[in-house]
Amino acid sequence: MTTGKPAIVLVSGGLDSATVAAIARDQGFRLHALSFDYGQRHVLELEAAKRVAAALGIVDHAIVRFDLRQFGGSALTADIAVPKDRDPAAMGVGIPITYVPARNTIFLSFALAQAEVAGAEDIFIGVNALDYSGYPDCRPEFIASFEHLANLATKAGVEGKTKLRIHAPLMALDKAAIIRRGVELGVDYGLTLSCYDPTPPNIACGGCDSCQLRRKGFREAGVADPTRYR
Amino acid sequence: MTTGKPAIVLVSGGLDSATVAAIARDQGFRLHALSFDYGQRHVLELEAAKRVAAALGIVDHAIVRFDLRQFGGSALTADIAVPKDRDPAAMGVGIPITYVPARNTIFLSFALAQAEVAGAEDIFIGVNALDYSGYPDCRPEFIASFEHLANLATKAGVEGKTKLRIHAPLMALDKAAIIRRGVELGVDYGLTLSCYDPTPPNIACGGCDSCQLRRKGFREAGVADPTRYR
Repeated sequence: MTTGKPAIVLVSGGLDSATVAAIARDQGFRLHALSFDYGQRHVLELEAAKRVAAALGIVDHAIVRFDLRQFGGSALTADIAVPKDRDPAAMGVGIPITYVPARNTIFLSFALAQAEVAGAEDIFIGVNALDYSGYPDCRPEFIASFEHLANLATKAGVEGKTKLRIHAPLMALDKAAIIRRGVELGVDYGLTLSCYDPTPPNIACGGCDSCQLRRKGFREAGVADPTRYR
Repeated sequence: MTTGKPAIVLVSGGLDSATVAAIARDQGFRLHALSFDYGQRHVLELEAAKRVAAALGIVDHAIVRFDLRQFGGSALTADIAVPKDRDPAAMGVGIPITYVPARNTIFLSFALAQAEVAGAEDIFIGVNALDYSGYPDCRPEFIASFEHLANLATKAGVEGKTKLRIHAPLMALDKAAIIRRGVELGVDYGLTLSCYDPTPPNIACGGCDSCQLRRKGFREAGVADPTRYR
């Protein structure tokens, strides 16, 4: 996997980003993975990211560390309980407490730095506007706006040499369609971890919004769910 | 200084951001300062940021740590010599090696997170399009684009409750005008540090682009330069 144009792929360790990485590889890109240790509750997520990146034959895997806990404001980074067993009908309404302020803006900003240094014109991110849990920074207009910014922010954009593209190939897919696409591409979802509140080594709670969406996705895709739930 | 609307102010320890903070305070904002320890060559910059923030009576001062050295690509974060004694006529041409990929995008992204948590609608940054050393992420179109993004990226933007504004009050000022404005507002420039290659405790090299622009600014403003040069 060392041929092709370089691309940056944000890899969280979850189902979506593993699928995105497989899609980018399938398109012939040479993958540079980027993950973040930002004070999220479970470093298990990073272990999953490493497994996913290794399985996809990436060129390199950068892990940027910073602490979003110093700002707080989210159940994922502050001492607020992760909601469990919510009515699925309530998930798409409003913005849940698991929203992390400005997270995707921060993630894409670092991807932009990595892209510029690696000479990459392409950044892949696994955001999704359907099963998206109500996060503002998962919408298509956000991604389009970041792409516009990226081309103004960088050396390449000023010199007019390259055109940075932010790819969000899952944007219009539901979870079942994402899973079907990943299975076609040979993704081993047993390596991934979606849960907001897992226990070691890789066991999902089964009740948080993310687990509920994942279970429903496998069910609707008609694919056996390899996740271990407690 | 604990009255007024909250605002986030990026404080680098340099002359420009000290002036911006004084302008924001003069406009009645309650200041939350934000600085970064990103693997820059001189942590002396952070010491200057703390002095500046303290002198301005800020509410709190967050310092976010991450390591841009893992990407490299700049004389400020990689092992590349800082250029000295360049012809001033060459400074505005091209993008110099001291450019840090995506730096202002990353900085503003964290400011956005802090703003969202602090309930602030205003972010102040000391970028400048005139004496700007050729950085793409100091241009007005970059700032406008980030403001657009900020209002799509956040909870506030989605709920339509607030309108985030990115203020870049130095954008159209030359260094002499910035210094004159700061002096009017009582900024003590002896606390600040602009040099790319300083020695402890707070001694500037005098020859890097930043020192040259600073010296010229004081000269043209007709203000005594409090900087200690080696």
